[in-house]
Amino acid sequence: MSAGTAVSRTDTTFRLAELRKLMAAHNVEVYIVPSEDAHQSEYIAPVDGRRAFISGFTGSAGCAVVTPSKASLSTDGRYFLQAEQELDSNWELLKQGLPEVPTWQEWALREAEGGKNIGVDACLISAAQAKSLAEKLKNRNGGELIGMDVNLVDLVWGEKQPERPKESLRILGLEFAGKPFEEKLVEIRKEIEKNKGSGLIVSMLDEIAWLFNLRGNDIPYNPVFFSYAFITPTEAILYIDEDKITEKVRENLGDKVTIKPYNAIFDDVKTFGEATATNDKKLLVTSSASWALTKYVGENKISTIKAPIEAAKAVKNETEVEGMRNAHIRDGAAQIQYFAWLERALLRGDIYDEVSAADKLEEFRKEKEHFVGLSFPTISSAGSNGAIIHYQPEKSTCARVDKDKIYLCDSGAQFLDGTTDSTRTVHYGTPTQEEKKSYTLVLKGHIAVARAVFPKGSSGFILDILARQYLWRAGLDYRHGTGHGVGSFLNVHEGPIGIGTRMQYNEVPLEVGMLISNEPGYYEDGQYGIRIENVVLVVEKNTPNNFGDKKYYGFETVTMVPMCRKLTDPTMLDEDEMKWLNEYHTEVYEKTKSFFKGDEYTLEWLKRETSPI
Amino acid sequence: MSAGTAVSRTDTTFRLAELRKLMAAHNVEVYIVPSEDAHQSEYIAPVDGRRAFISGFTGSAGCAVVTPSKASLSTDGRYFLQAEQELDSNWELLKQGLPEVPTWQEWALREAEGGKNIGVDACLISAAQAKSLAEKLKNRNGGELIGMDVNLVDLVWGEKQPERPKESLRILGLEFAGKPFEEKLVEIRKEIEKNKGSGLIVSMLDEIAWLFNLRGNDIPYNPVFFSYAFITPTEAILYIDEDKITEKVRENLGDKVTIKPYNAIFDDVKTFGEATATNDKKLLVTSSASWALTKYVGENKISTIKAPIEAAKAVKNETEVEGMRNAHIRDGAAQIQYFAWLERALLRGDIYDEVSAADKLEEFRKEKEHFVGLSFPTISSAGSNGAIIHYQPEKSTCARVDKDKIYLCDSGAQFLDGTTDSTRTVHYGTPTQEEKKSYTLVLKGHIAVARAVFPKGSSGFILDILARQYLWRAGLDYRHGTGHGVGSFLNVHEGPIGIGTRMQYNEVPLEVGMLISNEPGYYEDGQYGIRIENVVLVVEKNTPNNFGDKKYYGFETVTMVPMCRKLTDPTMLDEDEMKWLNEYHTEVYEKTKSFFKGDEYTLEWLKRETSPI
Repeated sequence: MSAGTAVSRTDTTFRLAELRKLMAAHNVEVYIVPSEDAHQSEYIAPVDGRRAFISGFTGSAGCAVVTPSKASLSTDGRYFLQAEQELDSNWELLKQGLPEVPTWQEWALREAEGGKNIGVDACLISAAQAKSLAEKLKNRNGGELIGMDVNLVDLVWGEKQPERPKESLRILGLEFAGKPFEEKLVEIRKEIEKNKGSGLIVSMLDEIAWLFNLRGNDIPYNPVFFSYAFITPTEAILYIDEDKITEKVRENLGDKVTIKPYNAIFDDVKTFGEATATNDKKLLVTSSASWALTKYVGENKISTIKAPIEAAKAVKNETEVEGMRNAHIRDGAAQIQYFAWLERALLRGDIYDEVSAADKLEEFRKEKEHFVGLSFPTISSAGSNGAIIHYQPEKSTCARVDKDKIYLCDSGAQFLDGTTDSTRTVHYGTPTQEEKKSYTLVLKGHIAVARAVFPKGSSGFILDILARQYLWRAGLDYRHGTGHGVGSFLNVHEGPIGIGTRMQYNEVPLEVGMLISNEPGYYEDGQYGIRIENVVLVVEKNTPNNFGDKKYYGFETVTMVPMCRKLTDPTMLDEDEMKWLNEYHTEVYEKTKSFFKGDEYTLEWLKRETSPI
Repeated sequence: MSAGTAVSRTDTTFRLAELRKLMAAHNVEVYIVPSEDAHQSEYIAPVDGRRAFISGFTGSAGCAVVTPSKASLSTDGRYFLQAEQELDSNWELLKQGLPEVPTWQEWALREAEGGKNIGVDACLISAAQAKSLAEKLKNRNGGELIGMDVNLVDLVWGEKQPERPKESLRILGLEFAGKPFEEKLVEIRKEIEKNKGSGLIVSMLDEIAWLFNLRGNDIPYNPVFFSYAFITPTEAILYIDEDKITEKVRENLGDKVTIKPYNAIFDDVKTFGEATATNDKKLLVTSSASWALTKYVGENKISTIKAPIEAAKAVKNETEVEGMRNAHIRDGAAQIQYFAWLERALLRGDIYDEVSAADKLEEFRKEKEHFVGLSFPTISSAGSNGAIIHYQPEKSTCARVDKDKIYLCDSGAQFLDGTTDSTRTVHYGTPTQEEKKSYTLVLKGHIAVARAVFPKGSSGFILDILARQYLWRAGLDYRHGTGHGVGSFLNVHEGPIGIGTRMQYNEVPLEVGMLISNEPGYYEDGQYGIRIENVVLVVEKNTPNNFGDKKYYGFETVTMVPMCRKLTDPTMLDEDEMKWLNEYHTEVYEKTKSFFKGDEYTLEWLKRETSPI
């Protein structure tokens, strides 16, 4: 962004005026616009981009709340800078997590005091969120929380709202999925029985894709498809627009799975609930089920359980693990080609901006076997743009990549055999001592997580401090989590595990076969951003002792891209850290070198970057 | 214990038979005997030692449950070995925290299935525990949870039960307390208002002692006195046996505090509740209030809040902090004298057992200014006894201290200006390489906590891994917390803070002025125990940056006793750890040397032990 800041700002005045008219007509004084779709997806299809449409803020997380005279947008630390740049003066930014800043719920409740109604599209809010909000509203002398069938933002958007995608599904073969969907159904039915359920309503799109070994193309970067599933001891029903089901898919599912229209789930589960729900047996949903679903079925017929499919999906089977390792090696080769190419281009004075550079990276990835697409928009960020944590360069406004400034590139791809996600921060000129110090503090935290050993039963919650400890000692920190679960040719962010300060991460122990990112960072606003991200696999460690017969776990790093030597201050690394780094580089070299046959330049570059420090 | 194991085992057959007769007469099939007294005290007076009387297990923590045919005792990892040695064959040991082992609640619920009643003295269980147990009992098709007025174990004990102590109170002068009780009352009344209370019932003994700047002598090692307090916007009532109130104490409390008999609290708060409790205003209690109290007042008149006095007490004022520093220097001097003396005694062949050695340590402490007594029974443990985490040597059965075995000494004292608690693990012969390795792994963890830097708002929960990380890497661990709050001439264990895996520790951020222990350990059953414990003070750290304007905190170590050089393997320490150790030793030397004027031997020993490694 070096030459002038130029994120585009949308004028939301007219949109807000239209929305407020509709709010008045529907007797709603406070209107909530969540960023999620009806499946609580993190990434959404353009048709569901209501929060971005109404607020102008295009980040992936946040919630808008509108009253007759005010409008607020709440988002987290990754997006503070971006939101400040994108929101126009109609909007108040609520910086989530900062002291004294209300959450969007608190803000909405305050505005609703004195008997005012809060409205929300019941499909776009989870039942638990709605319940908690309704209770608080009551305690604060507010009006009603109204779960609406109609979406007011859609009405404002009108004809300009994009269409819902209709692309065909693809079958994920056993050579990639590792386990037939029939076996997965057997396991899930055991969970249904264990949880005293008459059936399980599945609304998370990645859970449905995983369960049936199917992949789609409805949401950018996420190989999922709009659908619901309903699993009973005898039936498995997939609710989906039939246009998406090819003959091959239908054949593959055979008589094990019934196909019904997308919206038929509502009446089906209502009828089923009325016929089967007893005091002891309920319809099972997970915390991501929409309020619309639970309201329709009747809350007394429903029991909310920890998502059994999410839990099963998080532990990758051997085929998936091997696929992830291979996908990361191919992805690493593409990144090595890219960083070698970029260095040469910049040093000889070629001009590339953040977008054209990222395009080149995509080209290298595309050449690799099993490539399907990117797993998220590449964060190709030069200099101060790197400090915008989830920055997305736009062609018209993006900055030039500058050999004399830190360049942060967070990118990943979907391969048939795995999803990748990694970040490298590089410098092709002479970094300042301060930049090297910051980078090396982040690197030390990254290595501390990579080398961690912990007893079975430990969660990612307790590992977070390992990543931050060196920054903290310098009075530094970063405003995002340290790690997220990663899907297997599925969503790049998946639950239930994570490394970070969210309490939910403490509820799920890390198990062998889980994949999680390791991505500490440091961001100097207006200057530069640093993040070092690898995907790591939970493995059993062969410790010299096994106190308490607990088993001790640790990580195997699967991402295969060299760290930046120029930004590393070796005097800040201790012996163990140096050993880890050198061994990692040796492994990167050995595992990727075969990709550069006939490409002497890249091979030499790789040799140089991975030789022992 | 070297020559044969000889912990005394009590035959509980007759006691259990008597108890079972009483249970049958009271229509109770499952009877709970908690280890706490009516104030949920951790340490108890002999009169309240009901769980030890009925089970024979004398450790400080645990719960006994008796049915017509079975008896179980649940305790935590600190006490597994001791419980195994002390329980007779009437008892089943429930090792709390091990996989597949039921909690005492689960065990009791299982036994109560099929409509059986569970009985418990309502004074000895908190309202929250009773409520949770009663609900689960209902779900498990058990009978009733009966909160009894009579204690069945007392009836079995009969005349042999010790008497309730009646010693006089002592006033803690402002030079030690740092803040007049009137000011504390003003602050607590603000908290009562903030929590919408008509009054606050205080039942924790250390909270009452702290609030009124009074100390007592009712519970061994804890300078507290049996009492309740009730604070309203206009009144402060201390419920206590009037025999304990001297004329001076009465004068000191003046017209600010009313004295009433110990048991008068029940009728008083019932009447007050009936007169004042409304929908918006309740009688406030904390989670430690007994079920007897809340049942008597009426649960609809009560609101349970986070203990405001506990929170205020945990943050020491400047006088208390200075007192704690000074008390720890004097205490350190006594320990230095002791360890120097012990080394000389053992090396010249003098014979001391664990008790006579501990007596000598007490002598050195007694000579120090402001000494009042020990803060807990000294854990003086040689060789394999060190692996019994809360071992208490008994004269008749204890082991000889052996220069060729590891000796672990965990001890502390009450001084007028502070409470001390520290552990040193030493060896006066030639430790094995394995012993040195284990010791140094523990030392590395200890130093990692001592050196930790963390943003304001962090809890002790997240620091726990710092202490364990090096042990984990070797597949080792310890089965106790890493740190507990420490009182100021009060209980050696106090809430609400702690370093460890209990979720409650994550709810309370560490604040400047808090004192906490730092005590990782390692225990090789049947061989040796290692623990290194210092008390540390939370201080603000002068970090080079202050990211997010958060403020960064860390610790100042206040315990002043050298670590064991013989057990330290310097090759396992990195530069930062070595620097910390050498600086700590220099500080120990500088702060304690003046105590050894005319004691050349001890001074030379100290010089040797604190010279740079």
